[in-house]
Amino acid sequence: VRITADLACMVSADIVVLAVPSQYLRGVLRKGLGFYRKGCPVVSVVKGIENKTLRRMSEVVCEEWGRAPVVVLSGPTIAQEVARGIPTTVAVASRNKPLLLKVQDLFMTKTLRVYTNQDIVGVELAGSLKNIIAIACGISDGLGFGTNTKAAIVSRGLAEMARLGVSLGAKKETFSGVAGLGDLVTTCFNPLSRNHYVGAQIARGASLASVLKKMKMVAEGVATAKSAQMLARKRGVEMPIVSEIARVLFNKKSPKLAVQHLMSREKKSE
Amino acid sequence: VRITADLACMVSADIVVLAVPSQYLRGVLRKGLGFYRKGCPVVSVVKGIENKTLRRMSEVVCEEWGRAPVVVLSGPTIAQEVARGIPTTVAVASRNKPLLLKVQDLFMTKTLRVYTNQDIVGVELAGSLKNIIAIACGISDGLGFGTNTKAAIVSRGLAEMARLGVSLGAKKETFSGVAGLGDLVTTCFNPLSRNHYVGAQIARGASLASVLKKMKMVAEGVATAKSAQMLARKRGVEMPIVSEIARVLFNKKSPKLAVQHLMSREKKSE
Repeated sequence: VRITADLACMVSADIVVLAVPSQYLRGVLRKGLGFYRKGCPVVSVVKGIENKTLRRMSEVVCEEWGRAPVVVLSGPTIAQEVARGIPTTVAVASRNKPLLLKVQDLFMTKTLRVYTNQDIVGVELAGSLKNIIAIACGISDGLGFGTNTKAAIVSRGLAEMARLGVSLGAKKETFSGVAGLGDLVTTCFNPLSRNHYVGAQIARGASLASVLKKMKMVAEGVATAKSAQMLARKRGVEMPIVSEIARVLFNKKSPKLAVQHLMSREKKSE
Repeated sequence: VRITADLACMVSADIVVLAVPSQYLRGVLRKGLGFYRKGCPVVSVVKGIENKTLRRMSEVVCEEWGRAPVVVLSGPTIAQEVARGIPTTVAVASRNKPLLLKVQDLFMTKTLRVYTNQDIVGVELAGSLKNIIAIACGISDGLGFGTNTKAAIVSRGLAEMARLGVSLGAKKETFSGVAGLGDLVTTCFNPLSRNHYVGAQIARGASLASVLKKMKMVAEGVATAKSAQMLARKRGVEMPIVSEIARVLFNKKSPKLAVQHLMSREKKSE
């Protein structure tokens, strides 16, 4: 295994693992095109939806690298914990079943349990959309709310993630799995999450620009909120939490008001 | 609203709310039969499955109080947080739709959002089974594992909860809702949970008997683990986490070994 920013290394790679911020993926792929060996399996751990095209990351890979065999890897895998060797699970998804089993074999260890899933759309969207819900949980914590509130955001958030996913061809069940619920819970309840941090800072009065300026790493939920809102509109899918988060992030809506509006919607059945 | 242990008060009640430990419910109902006004709506917040009969709590109510109109209330509602007035959601379920809407109206406030659900089997089982998964999360925390591990337990746990539920007539979606996932997440991530506490203590070497002896309140997950294991066997449903928890609780299996066995099962798709 070699972790590198040198694209030329790909020439001799058996598998390429892509881990770059979502909005830069297409640029990186274009730079790497000359070094990519045609047919070489690609594992994407990139989370996001391209703002300009509303494409998923595996779609971007296929567009730029001519139908490369792509596997998506996603799940509740806080890096520091994986390194500590504590029990962890993750999902891999692809339409290419032999490749999927190969990647499962390759990544599985005594402490990392790998589940296969053929719903690449669902696994990829779940991993991306969960970052928006994590921002919402950060806002809730930043406002001083508790576990009840986060549980509400997580369960209603997952419901709207699944609604958008299904409208785009994903399977509903994927959102209840390791890459859906599992990853969502981790990002929402782990205080190290960058997206959670963004929400908490904004709830405490910071502006989005000032928060992002101070961060060294990318909080993918911000760009994803933009894409998700556009996709929801296009598909006519109701996503109340995502809409409120987008208003807070991009239209300076007060987080408190956003929560009030979510709580005072008309009475509903689940 | 009157909170009382005096069953005679029921004579003049408009609605009776039942909140007693599950394994004592039938006894309390029998004592109260003479005071129960026939047709008076009953809201049950009791979580559990009767060990002797494997009945759900609303079934026990109907058996003892002659088809009383029952509403089940369940969800992520840590009492101290509800009292603080932070945003909270909860589900109410009943087959009696007018009664369901009445109870929704009655309980809904600015900070408590009530969702109706017609799947009484699912809401009731979700609220009960989640306590077993909370014990598993307590064990994980007690062994020093992290968020990745708990996310795995929560998502795979929810999958087996839903499998048993569906085999007993519940709707799968209920397990992804406020009363399923929402409540599960709360119980697993809030350190105040009694069931989580039991698991954590056992992981640190205490015996079940000594832990239960020290507790003033009932950890429903222990009795529920017994009932769930029997139901799973009867229905032929695979519940690997519940089985391991039952072995740890009742057969003194080492918690570490139980985790190892869960992690080393054959490779799976989700």
